Amino acid sequence: MSQRVKKLTGLVAATFTPLTAEGEINLSVIAAYVDYLIEKQNVKSVFVNGTTGEGCSLTVDERKHLAAAWCQHGKGKLEQLIVHVGCMSIKDSQELARHAASIGADGISVISPSYFKPINADALRLFIKEVSASAPDLPMYYYHLPGMTGVALEAADVLNGIEREIPSFQGVKYSGTDLRDLGQCVCYSQSRDWSVLYGVDEQLLGALVLGVHGAVGSTYNYLGHIVNQMLSAFNNGNHTQTRDLQFGFMEVITFARTLGFDVSVNKQVMSEVSGLPMGPPRLPLLPCPVSKAQAIAQKIHNFTQGL
Amino acid sequence: MSQRVKKLTGLVAATFTPLTAEGEINLSVIAAYVDYLIEKQNVKSVFVNGTTGEGCSLTVDERKHLAAAWCQHGKGKLEQLIVHVGCMSIKDSQELARHAASIGADGISVISPSYFKPINADALRLFIKEVSASAPDLPMYYYHLPGMTGVALEAADVLNGIEREIPSFQGVKYSGTDLRDLGQCVCYSQSRDWSVLYGVDEQLLGALVLGVHGAVGSTYNYLGHIVNQMLSAFNNGNHTQTRDLQFGFMEVITFARTLGFDVSVNKQVMSEVSGLPMGPPRLPLLPCPVSKAQAIAQKIHNFTQGL
Amino acid sequence: MSQRVKKLTGLVAATFTPLTAEGEINLSVIAAYVDYLIEKQNVKSVFVNGTTGEGCSLTVDERKHLAAAWCQHGKGKLEQLIVHVGCMSIKDSQELARHAASIGADGISVISPSYFKPINADALRLFIKEVSASAPDLPMYYYHLPGMTGVALEAADVLNGIEREIPSFQGVKYSGTDLRDLGQCVCYSQSRDWSVLYGVDEQLLGALVLGVHGAVGSTYNYLGHIVNQMLSAFNNGNHTQTRDLQFGFMEVITFARTLGFDVSVNKQVMSEVSGLPMGPPRLPLLPCPVSKAQAIAQKIHNFTQGL
Amino acid sequence: MSQRVKKLTGLVAATFTPLTAEGEINLSVIAAYVDYLIEKQNVKSVFVNGTTGEGCSLTVDERKHLAAAWCQHGKGKLEQLIVHVGCMSIKDSQELARHAASIGADGISVISPSYFKPINADALRLFIKEVSASAPDLPMYYYHLPGMTGVALEAADVLNGIEREIPSFQGVKYSGTDLRDLGQCVCYSQSRDWSVLYGVDEQLLGALVLGVHGAVGSTYNYLGHIVNQMLSAFNNGNHTQTRDLQFGFMEVITFARTLGFDVSVNKQVMSEVSGLPMGPPRLPLLPCPVSKAQAIAQKIHNFTQGL
Repeated sequence: MSQRVKKLTGLVAATFTPLTAEGEINLSVIAAYVDYLIEKQNVKSVFVNGTTGEGCSLTVDERKHLAAAWCQHGKGKLEQLIVHVGCMSIKDSQELARHAASIGADGISVISPSYFKPINADALRLFIKEVSASAPDLPMYYYHLPGMTGVALEAADVLNGIEREIPSFQGVKYSGTDLRDLGQCVCYSQSRDWSVLYGVDEQLLGALVLGVHGAVGSTYNYLGHIVNQMLSAFNNGNHTQTRDLQFGFMEVITFARTLGFDVSVNKQVMSEVSGLPMGPPRLPLLPCPVSKAQAIAQKIHNFTQGL
Repeated sequence: MSQRVKKLTGLVAATFTPLTAEGEINLSVIAAYVDYLIEKQNVKSVFVNGTTGEGCSLTVDERKHLAAAWCQHGKGKLEQLIVHVGCMSIKDSQELARHAASIGADGISVISPSYFKPINADALRLFIKEVSASAPDLPMYYYHLPGMTGVALEAADVLNGIEREIPSFQGVKYSGTDLRDLGQCVCYSQSRDWSVLYGVDEQLLGALVLGVHGAVGSTYNYLGHIVNQMLSAFNNGNHTQTRDLQFGFMEVITFARTLGFDVSVNKQVMSEVSGLPMGPPRLPLLPCPVSKAQAIAQKIHNFTQGL
Repeated sequence: MSQRVKKLTGLVAATFTPLTAEGEINLSVIAAYVDYLIEKQNVKSVFVNGTTGEGCSLTVDERKHLAAAWCQHGKGKLEQLIVHVGCMSIKDSQELARHAASIGADGISVISPSYFKPINADALRLFIKEVSASAPDLPMYYYHLPGMTGVALEAADVLNGIEREIPSFQGVKYSGTDLRDLGQCVCYSQSRDWSVLYGVDEQLLGALVLGVHGAVGSTYNYLGHIVNQMLSAFNNGNHTQTRDLQFGFMEVITFARTLGFDVSVNKQVMSEVSGLPMGPPRLPLLPCPVSKAQAIAQKIHNFTQGL
Repeated sequence: MSQRVKKLTGLVAATFTPLTAEGEINLSVIAAYVDYLIEKQNVKSVFVNGTTGEGCSLTVDERKHLAAAWCQHGKGKLEQLIVHVGCMSIKDSQELARHAASIGADGISVISPSYFKPINADALRLFIKEVSASAPDLPMYYYHLPGMTGVALEAADVLNGIEREIPSFQGVKYSGTDLRDLGQCVCYSQSRDWSVLYGVDEQLLGALVLGVHGAVGSTYNYLGHIVNQMLSAFNNGNHTQTRDLQFGFMEVITFARTLGFDVSVNKQVMSEVSGLPMGPPRLPLLPCPVSKAQAIAQKIHNFTQGL
């Protein structure tokens, strides 16, 4: 990995994948999506084709087209574009990694395969290594999401010694609630100047206090501007304001969860709040009743207006 | 679905996917594999690219090449060739379904996507329906494997009314231990002349007594000839011999489980017992130490020789 | 263990615990309950203070009073009275074991503690041993119910070698769906003349074919007479009738499950079908709406009348 | 609840239960234990007969004797003595609640029963209410520990409206990693002046930043003096020192977890570090090899000496 790596910090939007009513990827939305994130949400980095982007429900070609569109429209505007290349098949991941390098992505990320689960941290490291070898110059981030993968390995065990196997390793997107494991990742990353990005939006504060460098999440698509205020308040030592913002955020998410806040609902909320046509989710996710998304959007509006 | 469908009965080998030492699919083995199953195991039907075949670890193209090789070498020899086309992406499944129809497969099968899990039986039925629509003339079998997918829907709920949505629906591969749910599937299938095939090899007897029409499993690759004896004993009302064979089988699997009997160990056991070069598994599965597979192969040898 | 042990076979009713409207144990029902089981259900053995009897929701004294009442009213009428003495505290279990011996119970049974879960089979065997030592002359049965305890040990591992540690060990109540583990228990029990009793009522047939010696379950309280017909049909080799009875039984349980068939619903169904006043369940279980129990009772009626 | 309730804040040691080599409760240790906590650990509140105290493995009488001993030796020395009265049987809990009131405990706490799990928050609230009614003048704290109980209800749902049913309700011991749910509990408790105490020692910092009032945990028995330094640093706004202490603490716990850090190991570590004879755990927990506890004690020593 030749050139100095821009450290991945601050808020990173885990982007949704716009689909047409017929369920085809809708690249025409990406340009406006880039501008919306930057201008309306003050969010300048994106994490493409992840869970929020229904990455695993897309074909390899669709993921290439989406990544390319984000690179094309984000170039010169976005600070960092990370392409999630995790697939069940390592060959598909390697192909996507090669492609990400070819289109000038700023980094790639891999989630653990979850149909066959790696039996230990060594097996997962080996999987990540084999993918990274297809794009040796691209920073690699491990995407830790035990809630979806069912892979109960500790992220700190996966990170332990990984730099010797993957020189381009650059950090972890930590989407879990085990803050002890997170803390061990932060400790291990400090001397290696890696980025530890938290991925459970509604409890970001618990990770900020442990020294994470930023956060990747779906809600930063439409609540990024508020969370940026929270980050500033935290950095300025204003813990009361930080806590109030986090409590308000928690209340919104708790309300959304009572209505069943899966990716399809989240996607419809994005359409409601942003005005960008995200379209339906892809099967096996079922479309979200608009009224449900509107109720959540209203709750968000009340929260943001009340500040 | 125009022509009369050959009912899927008896033993169906869930085939392994031969890989070279470099991890590429090794199609040169398939011809000998067909003959081995028919001549040595008396097994004349196969279920390709399923869990045993590491289907989800393969690319779409690799799955096409494998299915085509099985069709090519199995034509006129095998009774039924079922291609598993289940993927996380419905578009990949649809492409594989179209391909299976084009190469003359006898049927296709779909497992539930498991990264995003269908929220209810309706969502899963819709997924299966959209895949089946890409190969409307091919019998469709639902592949029920909650142990791997984590999808806790009852198979009987998925089957309930599915014929109205999928005329080509033809039955279920039931790989679970809830025999009440299995029994409800058998009842529902009786009047529709569907096939219910059991998929937990080591407790097949508990399903036979409920009237399943056959069994799909990995161990029928190398223990098919013994299990065929068990089926004959059962059909002849010789329940003592049936139970002794099942107990002997259980003892082999219990021994194998103590050594960690995942797909990679099972694959190496197949190489040991059959002499066919199955090669290594693909990451995230790790290769199985040969000694472990040899110990299991020895146990199998002692069991089969002792009969 | 001096005298010859009567082998525990056939149907054993896991008895409900009658409570008054105020939630106190209602011993006045036990005499009629004994007669109802024998005369109406043709069930002559009982398993007292188990899961169905809300054993763990009762105090040690209440469990003693109930066991004593069953012994008193069952003496000379019931073939076998097994007292479940499993508690979270080993000392409570030991006290109940001593008491069971003092009142002439035919055997005792212990479930694994489940707040602290034994780390391996040795720890669980040691627990059972320490309880059995308090009633060395009473046959001891291990009560295997992973669905409730969350203890994922294989019953066959617990049985392995237990006779060397517990001379009075006499078998297992197997309430799980892993028929391979069940089969290994049946094999291990054969030469030791132990009883293996199946505990998942709705899929009894899958266990009968493996050679279990009987069944312990809640539904035998009110469907014992039907299941006894199934046992006879099975023993007479009439597998079609056996299967039809099992399918009918499965349908009833599937219907009940759609309404939420927990112990409190099951208890109210017993009141509806038997006419015996079982009363409410104890917190944390909530009383079952009578209409729900009546719908299930009607389904049972239709099933039994249709035979 | 007549008199003003002392708010429960700061560190609360979840006490171990000293047992003799024969497994009997060893009350002779309690007096020295009180002094050790106060003088060596600067911890002045205790939570007796909880998970760390193997409460559910003790008989009702043993729990009474232990609570009485703590009251007797703690009177005038300890700030608050909370007696955990949660049992599987509500009647046992009610008896322990009455007893706790009779011996002058400062409060009682109830965990959800876990063999039968409450079907919703209403059922659990009703359980807590019925226990609290046996000691209406004692502050009641809900003990939320989904990791052990398997009860996946949100604590905030249990708290919602509980004051109308339990006037003596006074807060929650939150032993979970869902900081959104925790945050909602803190919000709900603010206007009611309840105490929210965090119960996952190794990630206390994530809860402190959300405004919890203190922490209940096993490690405060022997690391209380260090964690008190962490609390002071946090309250003084010295976040670097706070984080360093938390990271050091995390490293100790991560090391202990690699050796299997269950209650029995934790208990032996307490004996090693404190010099107090905690004795063996009770079955089904197995005694901890002394060498394992010594290795952890050494790690603790290195950590505390390094500060």
